[in-house]
Amino acid sequence: MLSAVALDGLPEIPAGADLASLVAAQLPPAAGALRDGDVLVIAHKAVSKAEGRTRRLSDVVPGPRARELAAPFGKDPRHVQVVLDETRELIRAERGVLICVTRHGFVCANAGVDASNVDAGETLVLLPLDPDRSARELRARVRELTGAAPAIVITDSFGRAWRHGQVDVAIGVAGLAPLEDWRGRPDSVGREMRATWIAIADEVASAADLARGKDTRQPVVLVRGLGHHVGAEDGPGAQTLVRPEAEDLFR
Amino acid sequence: MLSAVALDGLPEIPAGADLASLVAAQLPPAAGALRDGDVLVIAHKAVSKAEGRTRRLSDVVPGPRARELAAPFGKDPRHVQVVLDETRELIRAERGVLICVTRHGFVCANAGVDASNVDAGETLVLLPLDPDRSARELRARVRELTGAAPAIVITDSFGRAWRHGQVDVAIGVAGLAPLEDWRGRPDSVGREMRATWIAIADEVASAADLARGKDTRQPVVLVRGLGHHVGAEDGPGAQTLVRPEAEDLFR
Repeated sequence: MLSAVALDGLPEIPAGADLASLVAAQLPPAAGALRDGDVLVIAHKAVSKAEGRTRRLSDVVPGPRARELAAPFGKDPRHVQVVLDETRELIRAERGVLICVTRHGFVCANAGVDASNVDAGETLVLLPLDPDRSARELRARVRELTGAAPAIVITDSFGRAWRHGQVDVAIGVAGLAPLEDWRGRPDSVGREMRATWIAIADEVASAADLARGKDTRQPVVLVRGLGHHVGAEDGPGAQTLVRPEAEDLFR
Repeated sequence: MLSAVALDGLPEIPAGADLASLVAAQLPPAAGALRDGDVLVIAHKAVSKAEGRTRRLSDVVPGPRARELAAPFGKDPRHVQVVLDETRELIRAERGVLICVTRHGFVCANAGVDASNVDAGETLVLLPLDPDRSARELRARVRELTGAAPAIVITDSFGRAWRHGQVDVAIGVAGLAPLEDWRGRPDSVGREMRATWIAIADEVASAADLARGKDTRQPVVLVRGLGHHVGAEDGPGAQTLVRPEAEDLFR
């Protein structure tokens, strides 16, 4: 059985916070101790804030490209400048939507730049510089604090090309196999299965999001029942979920 | 708490089978009776087989377009013909990959046509003709059999434009709100939230897939803890998850 339960009561997270320690302190009593096969799923905003990956709009001077993209849609050109600063390649800029390739290779709206929910948009929250490294560091610190080494999945909400709505996906992973490859393995009746290559880490991100209340501060979700996907090694991380440009039919 | 548990032991499903009855008979004893807030997530292959939405390759005569698309990649032109028969619009045909808009408007590889896992590819399994109707009918039949009206989500595994691997998504829905709209609602500190429009039904599909063994016959997963998304009305269905062509930046 798979289970997912959101942790309550994480405080506002200042830059430099020991996030792993805050998380460890908020484990639900009913859950008992953390175990090696557990997965802690963490919304990236908490990680980015702890890492100081934020920018104050008042410190931003927009360039000509940002002003040009912002003007027709009444956007704040400083906000657009921050998005461009996080963007390796802008693949669509239509109808006020900026679809960006981030420094990590993720394709998403606004390069993952969000308004903070603390100060009414005066501070923007960026994606972590290296979310896989963030996940590995959090995992090591959780192990240090608790003795257990749950996998860590750092998430963001991404839109999709052909479907309405957003789903949570993995942007940083340590200790969980991000992809499970069943291509070519025989199926239950001994014949070849259809091509099946499952983005486990993205499915975990989505499952965790369902356990979370959007209007309460619940960035962390404890997922159980996935021990068969969790290993001692940190593994290749969410970077392995990025489809390289050369294989991309939709850029 | 969210939980997801796969049902064991569904038999091979012949055309005309009473799928709801097979499902109701296989509920895990530990789960107790079905409740109105439950969600039954069903892999589409089971639904398609029960509805007779299959084609035997030996009955298919490939046309010139199918032969032309199949030849460079050593594919069976009859299989490609079946894909084309299910395709409203072919948006990419590169490197042997056919990215199709299905009759329902879903964008996916091979129009959702799979080889059966029964007879080594001699029979192809199509998507249900109207998966939302299939979901509504299954829900009504489950209610008739058990007195409870769990939501029904019918799923398939879709690839994504910019990410490796497949995730399960919803192609038919009854009784679950497919999208949750938080855009413009105040957040936990009373200020405007960032645009958040969550594809709940797709996240449910992905969560359920994690509870399923790929090499065993487990098309059905019972998901609990989502009662706040389940209603007495069947609702708009998965069709509401389809982004219309006019809003699509990547076709």
